[in-house]
Amino acid sequence: MSGQRSWTAALVVIGDEILSGRTQDLNVAQVASWLNEQGIRLAEVRIVPDDIGRIAETVNALRRSHDYLFTTGGIGPTHDDITVDAMAAAFGVSTIIHPDARRILEDYYRDRPGGLTDARLRMARVPEGAELIPNPHSGAPGVKMGNVYILAGVPNIAANMLEALTGKLEGGRPVVSVTVGARAAESDVADLLRETEDSNPGVAIGSYPFFREGRYGANFVIRSEDGELARRTGDELSSRLREAGYEPVEGGI
Amino acid sequence: MSGQRSWTAALVVIGDEILSGRTQDLNVAQVASWLNEQGIRLAEVRIVPDDIGRIAETVNALRRSHDYLFTTGGIGPTHDDITVDAMAAAFGVSTIIHPDARRILEDYYRDRPGGLTDARLRMARVPEGAELIPNPHSGAPGVKMGNVYILAGVPNIAANMLEALTGKLEGGRPVVSVTVGARAAESDVADLLRETEDSNPGVAIGSYPFFREGRYGANFVIRSEDGELARRTGDELSSRLREAGYEPVEGGI
Repeated sequence: MSGQRSWTAALVVIGDEILSGRTQDLNVAQVASWLNEQGIRLAEVRIVPDDIGRIAETVNALRRSHDYLFTTGGIGPTHDDITVDAMAAAFGVSTIIHPDARRILEDYYRDRPGGLTDARLRMARVPEGAELIPNPHSGAPGVKMGNVYILAGVPNIAANMLEALTGKLEGGRPVVSVTVGARAAESDVADLLRETEDSNPGVAIGSYPFFREGRYGANFVIRSEDGELARRTGDELSSRLREAGYEPVEGGI
Repeated sequence: MSGQRSWTAALVVIGDEILSGRTQDLNVAQVASWLNEQGIRLAEVRIVPDDIGRIAETVNALRRSHDYLFTTGGIGPTHDDITVDAMAAAFGVSTIIHPDARRILEDYYRDRPGGLTDARLRMARVPEGAELIPNPHSGAPGVKMGNVYILAGVPNIAANMLEALTGKLEGGRPVVSVTVGARAAESDVADLLRETEDSNPGVAIGSYPFFREGRYGANFVIRSEDGELARRTGDELSSRLREAGYEPVEGGI
């Protein structure tokens, strides 16, 4: 932990459909979990509208303050898919048709009605200087530009692109989470939680209350890059809860 | 529309549990839908960690650039609930125990085991100068500080606080959405969509593809503050789709 470099990423979710409430975002949780497995901490997310200026400004603010920046959304074939244009604006370059992306799309659409139309060819556009992120299960690839990884908005297509990137990004140690649940109102165990966190430097303990089947409860999540420390702290918290009269539930409720 | 003032809000989601991927956020969609009903457009969302400095900085950036700022998360009784402290830091004021909040909590905990403990009293803390947002269904209220509305993170408690605010915020006309679906690959109708949008100034058309039961499809969402225009454009899009050989599905697929 101490002395070890820590790696961070930010995520920009691009989409009027998320900001209007029409579509429930699923990419934040998916990208967050994947990043954690790569030893990279998701430090910030911004959700912005389909607006080239706003996207470009946000990308430039975040790509400089984090090791990695991911974006989801806006890379399809229709007029509202403007992420590549925004990225070109952010980097001050033109957009070009990437020759490998054109070849992938030519192969993909060869036997499909209509073939590679102009609209479909839009999906081969990248900011000049970009590389492709392979999409193992469908045609259009993602795009990597500097430290920015441009993913699709449809969650299962974004998942395919993350799969292609697994193990390829430099990161540190994944954060280990240990969860202990109890049928306790969190206000009743607030002191106990604080004391447990204070006596174990290097861990953070989050308290997540719920009310289910007419009873209060909470899950306490102990997080640390030191897995052994996280587990030891979990055991200590379980003992303290038991002493206070609450039956701990390892793994959470 | 033209000449009419437009009202915007931003939302800050506070929570390590969202950024770690452990918890699926549900507040963005809920706050977005509610704001739209109030005639206020959600223009940006930021998700930030449980860090006083980061929260304060984000709040100060966004409360000045939008009519309203909402936050969710971090207002419970445990050590990781730091939103009120961050808000006080953002506004450069102290935190105090709000007398009305203390009274609400005294009533709420009077007949409950333990009564109003110090930990529970933490939920009566507000930045100096703040007002309360009533929480009709449980004890702890939300907090209003200037144009900032501080809501709970647990989605159904946040919903209660929004309910208490319904109709109380000044806003414009709600955006009307009309959805038309079709069993079409969006790349096949990209030109048709762009033409429909171009010939109807004042509408934005979003295209949201899916792949279900082995078939491609997409929903096209026409949005405008002018409900009549949105409906007329929906009819026009349906006609164009039918002419192109796709059966339109009013209301979406």
